[in-house]
Amino acid sequence: MYAYEEQREALMARLKRVEGQVKGIMKMIDDGRYCPDILQQISALTGALDEVSLILLESHLSGCVTDAIQAKNGEASIREVMHVIRKVVKR
Amino acid sequence: MYAYEEQREALMARLKRVEGQVKGIMKMIDDGRYCPDILQQISALTGALDEVSLILLESHLSGCVTDAIQAKNGEASIREVMHVIRKVVKR
Amino acid sequence: MYAYEEQREALMARLKRVEGQVKGIMKMIDDGRYCPDILQQISALTGALDEVSLILLESHLSGCVTDAIQAKNGEASIREVMHVIRKVVKR
Amino acid sequence: MYAYEEQREALMARLKRVEGQVKGIMKMIDDGRYCPDILQQISALTGALDEVSLILLESHLSGCVTDAIQAKNGEASIREVMHVIRKVVKR
Repeated sequence: MYAYEEQREALMARLKRVEGQVKGIMKMIDDGRYCPDILQQISALTGALDEVSLILLESHLSGCVTDAIQAKNGEASIREVMHVIRKVVKR
Repeated sequence: MYAYEEQREALMARLKRVEGQVKGIMKMIDDGRYCPDILQQISALTGALDEVSLILLESHLSGCVTDAIQAKNGEASIREVMHVIRKVVKR
Repeated sequence: MYAYEEQREALMARLKRVEGQVKGIMKMIDDGRYCPDILQQISALTGALDEVSLILLESHLSGCVTDAIQAKNGEASIREVMHVIRKVVKR
Repeated sequence: MYAYEEQREALMARLKRVEGQVKGIMKMIDDGRYCPDILQQISALTGALDEVSLILLESHLSGCVTDAIQAKNGEASIREVMHVIRKVVKR
């Protein structure tokens, strides 16, 4: 059992769409489309990935981190989640 | 002819890898992998997309924007590229 | 009592330095310094602010959010912290 | 003469406001204000700094980079500006 079980289908649907966006960007490059249009699509894709990250992060806080805190064992869990949040923030 | 012609193959190779990373993340979710590990992969993916954006942006500046400036027509081109850079910065 | 009490002095020292950096950037503009050099300083400043945010966020998770979770009241607290994390990520 | 001469006053006014925001955040910490409220203010501050960066970047493209390109010397100038844009994007 994992924390994002309830969001699993929504996450998969989002990632399926992300995959389609990646293919779309490859086609734009193949077709020699205008750079700013491609850059706009990549920026939309990054935004979509941020949403996936935020959903996973919320599941993780509500699941594993909450469990760890209730087991009086939150410290390591919070340190770990901060490490991940730093990576998301700093890209 | 488009500005990123010379980088076309490198860009496609990068996007091919990005596509693989997206599939990898879907598999991680399917396998019920640990949230922080998935979040780390998404953050790597966002980093890879940033690189694609920066390559395209450099091509655009060296190509279209340079041409526009040499044709004494840089103003609109710079306004347009700033619009795109803002999107990349603000996600 | 607030969650970041222990980090209060470290946070103030960091923000004091941030204030100095802002003054330094104003002086660079006053002196007509080269744009890329100023941009580099602003980017360092943004990085310094990110560190302050991450310290506050960790204190908040270890303090208020942990307390809320232990009081079986974590849900609203996690929703609130996600709202803030989103703002930090999306700038 | 520097590229952002025309924006000098607007930039200084923005940075003056940024300085006030930094002082405001220090006061919030001194007053023991609630973490998420402080984090929200820091995120507004980062947003304000992004605007300053984007103004400077546009001035730089319209000024120095345009001059370099017109002098058939754009390559080094574009390489340099990309280096700075990368720093802004990656924080």
